[in-house]
Amino acid sequence: MPTYKLIYFDVTGLGESIRFLLNHCGIKFEDTRIAIDDWPKHKSDMPMGQMPVLEIDGKRYHQSRAIGRFLAKKGNLYGADDFEAMEIDATIDSMDDIRLALSQYYWEKDAAFKEKLKETAFQKLPYYLDKFEAQVKKNGGYFVGGKLSWADFLWAAYFDYLSFVLAGDPNKDHPELKKLVEKVRGLPNVKAYIEKRPTTQL
Amino acid sequence: MPTYKLIYFDVTGLGESIRFLLNHCGIKFEDTRIAIDDWPKHKSDMPMGQMPVLEIDGKRYHQSRAIGRFLAKKGNLYGADDFEAMEIDATIDSMDDIRLALSQYYWEKDAAFKEKLKETAFQKLPYYLDKFEAQVKKNGGYFVGGKLSWADFLWAAYFDYLSFVLAGDPNKDHPELKKLVEKVRGLPNVKAYIEKRPTTQL
Repeated sequence: MPTYKLIYFDVTGLGESIRFLLNHCGIKFEDTRIAIDDWPKHKSDMPMGQMPVLEIDGKRYHQSRAIGRFLAKKGNLYGADDFEAMEIDATIDSMDDIRLALSQYYWEKDAAFKEKLKETAFQKLPYYLDKFEAQVKKNGGYFVGGKLSWADFLWAAYFDYLSFVLAGDPNKDHPELKKLVEKVRGLPNVKAYIEKRPTTQL
Repeated sequence: MPTYKLIYFDVTGLGESIRFLLNHCGIKFEDTRIAIDDWPKHKSDMPMGQMPVLEIDGKRYHQSRAIGRFLAKKGNLYGADDFEAMEIDATIDSMDDIRLALSQYYWEKDAAFKEKLKETAFQKLPYYLDKFEAQVKKNGGYFVGGKLSWADFLWAAYFDYLSFVLAGDPNKDHPELKKLVEKVRGLPNVKAYIEKRPTTQL
Protein backbone atom coordinates (compact mmCIF):
# COMPACT_ATOMS: atom_id res chain seq x y z
CA MET A 1 0.00 0.00 0.00
CA PRO A 2 1.38 3.43 -0.89
CA THR A 3 1.74 5.92 1.95
CA TYR A 4 -0.08 9.24 1.69
CA LYS A 5 0.70 12.48 3.43
CA LEU A 6 -1.30 15.67 2.90
CA ILE A 7 0.62 18.86 3.64
CA TYR A 8 -1.42 22.03 4.07
CA PHE A 9 -2.16 24.86 6.45
CA ASP A 10 -4.33 24.22 9.49
CA VAL A 11 -7.41 25.51 7.66
CA THR A 12 -10.12 24.07 5.40
CA GLY A 13 -9.46 26.25 2.30
CA LEU A 14 -8.09 24.33 -0.67
CA GLY A 15 -7.21 21.27 1.40
CA GLU A 16 -10.56 20.26 2.81
CA SER A 17 -11.99 18.65 -0.34
CA ILE A 18 -8.82 16.51 -0.49
CA ARG A 19 -9.31 15.51 3.16
CA PHE A 20 -12.96 14.65 2.39
CA LEU A 21 -11.93 12.55 -0.63
CA LEU A 22 -9.17 10.69 1.19
CA ASN A 23 -11.51 9.89 4.07
CA HIS A 24 -14.39 8.91 1.81
CA CYS A 25 -12.14 6.59 -0.20
CA GLY A 26 -10.84 4.99 2.98
CA ILE A 27 -7.26 5.98 2.18
CA LYS A 28 -5.17 6.29 5.32
CA PHE A 29 -3.08 9.48 5.30
CA GLU A 30 -1.03 11.68 7.54
CA ASP A 31 -2.89 15.01 7.86
CA THR A 32 0.08 17.36 8.27
CA ARG A 33 -0.96 20.89 9.17
CA ILE A 34 1.67 23.60 8.90
CA ALA A 35 1.29 26.58 11.25
CA ILE A 36 1.25 29.83 9.32
CA ASP A 37 4.29 31.07 11.29
CA ASP A 38 6.29 28.04 10.13
CA TRP A 39 5.37 28.42 6.45
CA PRO A 40 8.44 30.45 5.39
CA LYS A 41 10.74 27.59 6.31
CA HIS A 42 8.68 25.04 4.32
CA LYS A 43 7.76 27.10 1.25
CA SER A 44 10.87 26.29 -0.79
CA ASP A 45 10.31 22.54 -0.26
CA MET A 46 7.00 22.66 -2.13
CA PRO A 47 6.95 22.04 -5.91
CA MET A 48 5.65 25.54 -6.76
CA GLY A 49 6.04 27.14 -3.33
CA GLN A 50 2.39 26.47 -2.59
CA MET A 51 0.14 24.07 -0.73
CA PRO A 52 -1.79 21.79 -0.60
CA VAL A 53 0.72 19.13 -1.50
CA LEU A 54 0.00 15.41 -1.50
CA GLU A 55 2.98 13.20 -0.87
CA ILE A 56 2.63 9.66 -2.21
CA ASP A 57 5.45 7.31 -1.26
CA GLY A 58 7.63 10.34 -0.66
CA LYS A 59 6.95 12.05 -4.01
CA ARG A 60 5.26 15.44 -3.79
CA TYR A 61 2.30 16.36 -6.01
CA HIS A 62 0.78 19.83 -6.06
CA GLN A 63 -2.22 21.90 -7.24
CA SER A 64 -5.44 21.12 -5.38
CA ARG A 65 -7.49 20.29 -8.46
CA ALA A 66 -4.84 17.99 -9.93
CA ILE A 67 -4.72 16.12 -6.61
CA GLY A 68 -8.51 16.07 -6.34
CA ARG A 69 -8.89 14.62 -9.84
CA PHE A 70 -6.35 11.87 -9.06
CA LEU A 71 -8.31 10.89 -5.95
CA ALA A 72 -11.66 11.21 -7.72
CA LYS A 73 -10.51 8.52 -10.17
CA LYS A 74 -9.60 6.24 -7.26
CA GLY A 75 -12.99 6.80 -5.66
CA ASN A 76 -15.05 6.31 -8.83
CA LEU A 77 -16.13 9.95 -8.55
CA TYR A 78 -15.09 11.11 -11.99
CA GLY A 79 -18.06 10.24 -14.19
CA ALA A 80 -18.98 7.35 -16.42
CA ASP A 81 -17.06 8.51 -19.51
CA ASP A 82 -14.89 11.32 -20.90
CA PHE A 83 -17.95 13.52 -21.52
CA GLU A 84 -19.06 13.33 -17.89
CA ALA A 85 -15.45 13.83 -16.80
CA MET A 86 -15.37 17.01 -18.92
CA GLU A 87 -18.58 18.24 -17.27
CA ILE A 88 -17.17 17.50 -13.82
CA ASP A 89 -13.96 19.35 -14.70
CA ALA A 90 -15.91 22.35 -16.02
CA THR A 91 -18.03 22.46 -12.86
CA ILE A 92 -14.93 22.23 -10.66
CA ASP A 93 -13.28 25.10 -12.55
CA SER A 94 -16.41 27.25 -12.29
CA MET A 95 -16.56 26.59 -8.55
CA ASP A 96 -12.96 27.63 -8.34
CA ASP A 97 -13.56 30.78 -10.37
CA ILE A 98 -16.06 32.07 -7.83
CA ARG A 99 -14.00 30.79 -4.89
CA LEU A 100 -11.00 32.69 -6.25
CA ALA A 101 -13.00 35.92 -6.72
CA LEU A 102 -14.13 35.69 -3.09
CA SER A 103 -10.63 34.77 -1.85
CA GLN A 104 -9.01 37.66 -3.65
CA TYR A 105 -11.43 40.04 -1.97
CA TYR A 106 -11.08 38.40 1.40
CA TRP A 107 -7.28 38.44 1.59
CA GLU A 108 -6.72 41.88 0.05
CA LYS A 109 -5.15 44.28 2.56
CA ASP A 110 -5.63 47.61 0.75
CA ALA A 111 -9.06 48.92 1.75
CA ALA A 112 -9.94 50.52 -1.60
CA PHE A 113 -8.97 47.45 -3.63
CA LYS A 114 -10.69 45.20 -1.16
CA GLU A 115 -13.93 47.11 -1.65
CA LYS A 116 -13.59 46.88 -5.41
CA LEU A 117 -12.79 43.14 -5.29
CA LYS A 118 -15.72 42.63 -2.95
CA GLU A 119 -18.05 44.38 -5.34
CA THR A 120 -16.85 42.22 -8.27
CA ALA A 121 -17.10 38.97 -6.31
CA PHE A 122 -20.52 39.74 -4.82
CA GLN A 123 -21.84 40.73 -8.22
CA LYS A 124 -20.77 37.36 -9.63
CA LEU A 125 -21.85 35.19 -6.71
CA PRO A 126 -25.65 35.02 -7.29
CA TYR A 127 -25.11 34.16 -10.96
CA TYR A 128 -22.88 31.21 -10.03
CA LEU A 129 -25.18 30.04 -7.25
CA ASP A 130 -28.25 30.18 -9.48
CA LYS A 131 -26.45 28.30 -12.27
CA PHE A 132 -25.20 25.67 -9.82
CA GLU A 133 -28.68 25.32 -8.28
CA ALA A 134 -30.22 24.78 -11.73
CA GLN A 135 -27.51 22.26 -12.63
CA VAL A 136 -28.09 20.18 -9.49
CA LYS A 137 -31.83 20.34 -9.95
CA LYS A 138 -31.51 19.14 -13.54
CA ASN A 139 -29.15 16.31 -12.61
CA GLY A 140 -31.24 14.61 -9.96
CA GLY A 141 -29.65 16.18 -6.90
CA TYR A 142 -26.03 15.95 -8.03
CA PHE A 143 -23.86 18.23 -10.15
CA VAL A 144 -23.19 15.74 -12.96
CA GLY A 145 -24.75 12.54 -14.25
CA GLY A 146 -27.32 11.97 -11.49
CA LYS A 147 -24.72 10.48 -9.18
CA LEU A 148 -22.06 11.45 -6.67
CA SER A 149 -18.92 12.98 -8.19
CA TRP A 150 -15.85 14.96 -7.23
CA ALA A 151 -17.78 18.16 -8.03
CA ASP A 152 -20.22 17.41 -5.19
CA PHE A 153 -17.26 16.92 -2.85
CA LEU A 154 -15.62 20.19 -3.82
CA TRP A 155 -18.77 22.22 -3.23
CA ALA A 156 -19.47 20.42 0.05
CA ALA A 157 -15.92 21.20 1.20
CA TYR A 158 -15.93 24.81 -0.01
CA PHE A 159 -18.94 25.23 2.28
CA ASP A 160 -16.53 25.72 5.19
CA TYR A 161 -14.34 28.24 3.41
CA LEU A 162 -17.19 30.18 1.82
CA SER A 163 -19.25 30.22 5.02
CA PHE A 164 -16.32 31.94 6.67
CA VAL A 165 -15.70 34.45 3.88
CA LEU A 166 -19.41 35.22 3.52
CA ALA A 167 -20.10 35.01 7.27
CA GLY A 168 -23.06 32.75 6.57
CA ASP A 169 -24.27 29.69 4.67
CA PRO A 170 -23.48 30.26 0.96
CA ASN A 171 -26.36 27.94 0.01
CA LYS A 172 -29.05 29.40 2.25
CA ASP A 173 -31.24 30.57 -0.63
CA HIS A 174 -30.50 27.55 -2.84
CA PRO A 175 -32.28 24.47 -1.48
CA GLU A 176 -30.85 21.97 -3.98
CA LEU A 177 -27.29 23.03 -3.15
CA LYS A 178 -28.03 22.98 0.56
CA LYS A 179 -29.45 19.46 0.35
CA LEU A 180 -26.50 18.21 -1.71
CA VAL A 181 -23.94 19.70 0.66
CA GLU A 182 -25.70 18.06 3.62
CA LYS A 183 -25.78 14.76 1.73
CA VAL A 184 -22.02 14.77 1.06
CA ARG A 185 -21.14 15.94 4.56
CA GLY A 186 -23.38 13.16 5.89
CA LEU A 187 -21.52 10.36 4.08
CA PRO A 188 -20.25 8.02 6.83
CA ASN A 189 -16.50 8.62 6.47
CA VAL A 190 -16.88 12.33 5.75
CA LYS A 191 -19.19 12.76 8.75
CA ALA A 192 -16.80 10.88 11.02
CA TYR A 193 -13.93 13.09 9.82
CA ILE A 194 -15.87 16.33 10.33
CA GLU A 195 -16.76 15.25 13.86
CA LYS A 196 -13.15 14.65 14.84
CA ARG A 197 -11.29 17.24 12.72
CA PRO A 198 -9.43 20.05 14.44
CA THR A 199 -11.43 23.23 14.96
CA THR A 200 -9.94 25.86 12.67
CA GLN A 201 -10.64 29.54 12.18
CA LEU A 202 -11.10 29.18 8.46
CA MET B 1 -18.06 11.17 -36.92
CA PRO B 2 -19.17 13.74 -34.35
CA THR B 3 -19.24 17.37 -35.45
CA TYR B 4 -17.18 19.89 -33.55
CA LYS B 5 -17.62 23.63 -33.33
CA LEU B 6 -15.38 25.89 -31.27
CA ILE B 7 -16.99 29.15 -30.21
CA TYR B 8 -14.70 31.90 -28.97
CA PHE B 9 -13.67 35.48 -29.56
CA ASP B 10 -11.48 36.33 -32.55
CA VAL B 11 -8.36 36.20 -30.39
CA THR B 12 -5.84 33.59 -29.27
CA GLY B 13 -6.38 33.89 -25.48
CA LEU B 14 -7.97 30.84 -23.89
CA GLY B 15 -9.06 29.40 -27.23
CA GLU B 16 -5.77 28.96 -29.05
CA SER B 17 -4.57 25.83 -27.22
CA ILE B 18 -7.90 24.22 -28.13
CA ARG B 19 -7.41 25.21 -31.77
CA PHE B 20 -3.87 23.77 -31.64
CA LEU B 21 -5.13 20.50 -30.15
CA LEU B 22 -8.01 20.11 -32.59
CA ASN B 23 -5.67 20.73 -35.52
CA HIS B 24 -2.94 18.46 -34.16
CA CYS B 25 -5.44 15.64 -33.60
CA GLY B 26 -6.78 16.06 -37.12
CA ILE B 27 -10.29 16.78 -35.82
CA LYS B 28 -12.28 18.84 -38.30
CA PHE B 29 -14.07 21.71 -36.58
CA GLU B 30 -15.88 24.93 -37.30
CA ASP B 31 -13.76 27.76 -35.89
CA THR B 32 -16.50 30.22 -34.95
CA ARG B 33 -15.15 33.62 -33.93
CA ILE B 34 -17.53 36.02 -32.21
CA ALA B 35 -16.84 39.73 -32.67
CA ILE B 36 -16.58 41.50 -29.34
CA ASP B 37 -19.45 43.82 -30.29
CA ASP B 38 -21.74 40.82 -30.84
CA TRP B 39 -20.87 39.15 -27.54
CA PRO B 40 -23.78 40.59 -25.49
CA LYS B 41 -26.29 38.84 -27.72
CA HIS B 42 -24.50 35.46 -27.39
CA LYS B 43 -23.48 35.53 -23.73
CA SER B 44 -26.68 34.05 -22.32
CA ASP B 45 -26.45 31.09 -24.72
CA MET B 46 -23.18 29.94 -23.16
CA PRO B 47 -23.28 27.46 -20.24
CA MET B 48 -21.71 29.87 -17.73
CA GLY B 49 -21.89 33.04 -19.80
CA GLN B 50 -18.29 32.56 -20.90
CA MET B 51 -16.21 31.30 -23.79
CA PRO B 52 -14.46 29.25 -25.12
CA VAL B 53 -17.22 26.72 -25.67
CA LEU B 54 -16.80 23.51 -27.62
CA GLU B 55 -19.95 22.21 -29.23
CA ILE B 56 -19.91 18.47 -29.93
CA ASP B 57 -22.90 17.19 -31.90
CA GLY B 58 -24.81 20.28 -30.78
CA LYS B 59 -24.08 19.95 -27.06
CA ARG B 60 -22.09 22.78 -25.53
CA TYR B 61 -19.13 22.16 -23.21
CA HIS B 62 -17.33 24.96 -21.41
CA GLN B 63 -14.18 25.87 -19.41
CA SER B 64 -11.00 25.89 -21.49
CA ARG B 65 -9.08 23.42 -19.33
CA ALA B 66 -11.95 20.92 -19.20
CA ILE B 67 -12.16 21.06 -23.01
CA GLY B 68 -8.38 20.82 -23.35
CA ARG B 69 -8.22 17.75 -21.13
CA PHE B 70 -10.96 16.03 -23.15
CA LEU B 71 -9.01 16.65 -26.36
CA ALA B 72 -5.69 15.70 -24.75
CA LYS B 73 -7.13 12.26 -24.03
CA LYS B 74 -8.16 11.90 -27.67
CA GLY B 75 -4.69 12.91 -28.85
CA ASN B 76 -2.76 10.67 -26.43
CA LEU B 77 -1.37 13.83 -24.82
CA TYR B 78 -2.40 13.11 -21.25
CA GLY B 79 0.45 10.97 -19.90
CA ALA B 80 1.06 7.27 -19.51
CA ASP B 81 -0.83 6.83 -16.22
CA ASP B 82 -2.78 8.67 -13.51
CA PHE B 83 0.43 9.97 -11.92
CA GLU B 84 1.60 11.60 -15.15
CA ALA B 85 -1.93 12.91 -15.73
CA MET B 86 -1.79 14.52 -12.28
CA GLU B 87 1.55 16.15 -13.11
CA ILE B 88 0.18 17.42 -16.42
CA ASP B 89 -2.89 18.81 -14.63
CA ALA B 90 -0.72 20.52 -12.00
CA THR B 91 1.48 22.06 -14.69
CA ILE B 92 -1.57 23.28 -16.61
CA ASP B 93 -3.02 24.88 -13.47
CA SER B 94 0.28 26.58 -12.65
CA MET B 95 0.46 27.95 -16.19
CA ASP B 96 -3.03 29.25 -15.74
CA ASP B 97 -2.21 30.82 -12.39
CA ILE B 98 0.46 33.01 -13.95
CA ARG B 99 -1.63 33.64 -17.08
CA LEU B 100 -4.50 34.81 -14.86
CA ALA B 101 -2.25 37.12 -12.82
CA LEU B 102 -1.07 38.72 -16.07
CA SER B 103 -4.59 38.89 -17.53
CA GLN B 104 -6.00 40.54 -14.45
CA TYR B 105 -3.35 43.23 -14.69
CA TYR B 106 -3.76 43.62 -18.43
CA TRP B 107 -7.53 44.07 -18.47
CA GLU B 108 -7.85 46.24 -15.36
CA LYS B 109 -9.16 49.73 -16.16
CA ASP B 110 -8.44 51.51 -12.87
CA ALA B 111 -4.89 52.90 -13.15
CA ALA B 112 -3.91 52.49 -9.50
CA PHE B 113 -5.31 48.99 -9.31
CA LYS B 114 -3.67 48.10 -12.63
CA GLU B 115 -0.28 49.18 -11.33
CA LYS B 116 -0.69 47.06 -8.23
CA LEU B 117 -1.80 44.01 -10.25
CA LYS B 118 1.11 44.54 -12.61
CA GLU B 119 3.55 44.59 -9.71
CA THR B 120 2.09 41.34 -8.31
CA ALA B 121 2.12 39.59 -11.69
CA PHE B 122 5.62 40.72 -12.64
CA GLN B 123 6.94 39.68 -9.26
CA LYS B 124 5.54 36.18 -9.78
CA LEU B 125 6.53 35.75 -13.43
CA PRO B 126 10.28 34.98 -13.10
CA TYR B 127 9.56 32.40 -10.40
CA TYR B 128 7.13 30.58 -12.68
CA LEU B 129 9.39 30.82 -15.73
CA ASP B 130 12.41 29.52 -13.80
CA LYS B 131 10.37 26.64 -12.37
CA PHE B 132 8.98 25.77 -15.81
CA GLU B 133 12.44 25.96 -17.37
CA ALA B 134 13.86 23.59 -14.74
CA GLN B 135 10.91 21.22 -15.22
CA VAL B 136 11.40 21.03 -19.00
CA LYS B 137 15.14 20.60 -18.61
CA LYS B 138 14.61 17.75 -16.14
CA ASN B 139 12.05 16.03 -18.37
CA GLY B 140 14.06 15.78 -21.55
CA GLY B 141 12.67 18.82 -23.32
CA TYR B 142 9.01 18.36 -22.39
CA PHE B 143 7.00 19.38 -19.35
CA VAL B 144 6.05 15.87 -18.23
CA GLY B 145 7.32 12.34 -18.80
CA GLY B 146 9.88 13.07 -21.52
CA LYS B 147 7.21 13.22 -24.20
CA LEU B 148 4.72 15.56 -25.78
CA SER B 149 1.67 16.35 -23.63
CA TRP B 150 -1.20 18.78 -23.35
CA ALA B 151 0.98 20.94 -21.04
CA ASP B 152 3.42 21.56 -23.91
CA PHE B 153 0.49 22.62 -26.11
CA LEU B 154 -0.89 25.04 -23.54
CA TRP B 155 2.44 26.80 -23.06
CA ALA B 156 3.05 26.91 -26.82
CA ALA B 157 -0.39 28.47 -27.31
CA TYR B 158 -0.11 30.91 -24.39
CA PHE B 159 2.98 32.21 -26.20
CA ASP B 160 0.68 34.34 -28.38
CA TYR B 161 -1.33 35.74 -25.50
CA LEU B 162 1.64 36.33 -23.20
CA SER B 163 3.77 37.85 -25.97
CA PHE B 164 1.04 40.41 -26.40
CA VAL B 165 0.56 41.17 -22.71
CA LEU B 166 4.33 41.32 -22.08
CA ALA B 167 5.07 43.02 -25.41
CA GLY B 168 7.81 40.47 -26.07
CA ASP B 169 8.72 36.79 -26.07
CA PRO B 170 7.90 35.41 -22.58
CA ASN B 171 10.56 32.70 -23.05
CA LYS B 172 13.41 34.89 -24.27
CA ASP B 173 15.61 34.19 -21.24
CA HIS B 174 14.57 30.56 -20.92
CA PRO B 175 16.12 28.48 -23.70
CA GLU B 176 14.42 25.17 -22.84
CA LEU B 177 11.00 26.81 -22.91
CA LYS B 178 11.81 28.63 -26.13
CA LYS B 179 12.91 25.40 -27.81
CA LEU B 180 9.83 23.52 -26.63
CA VAL B 181 7.47 26.24 -27.82
CA GLU B 182 9.14 26.22 -31.23
CA LYS B 183 8.89 22.43 -31.34
CA VAL B 184 5.15 22.41 -30.66
CA ARG B 185 4.45 25.29 -33.03
CA GLY B 186 6.46 23.43 -35.65
CA LEU B 187 4.34 20.26 -35.52
CA PRO B 188 2.95 19.82 -39.04
CA ASN B 189 -0.76 20.45 -38.35
CA VAL B 190 -0.08 23.21 -35.82
CA LYS B 191 2.33 24.92 -38.20
CA ALA B 192 -0.16 24.72 -41.07
CA TYR B 193 -2.86 26.20 -38.82
CA ILE B 194 -0.63 29.06 -37.63
CA GLU B 195 0.23 29.91 -41.23
CA LYS B 196 -3.38 30.21 -42.29
CA ARG B 197 -5.08 31.47 -39.09
CA PRO B 198 -6.65 34.92 -39.06
CA THR B 199 -4.38 37.72 -37.89
CA THR B 200 -5.70 38.90 -34.54
CA GLN B 201 -4.70 41.71 -32.23
CA LEU B 202 -4.36 39.47 -29.23
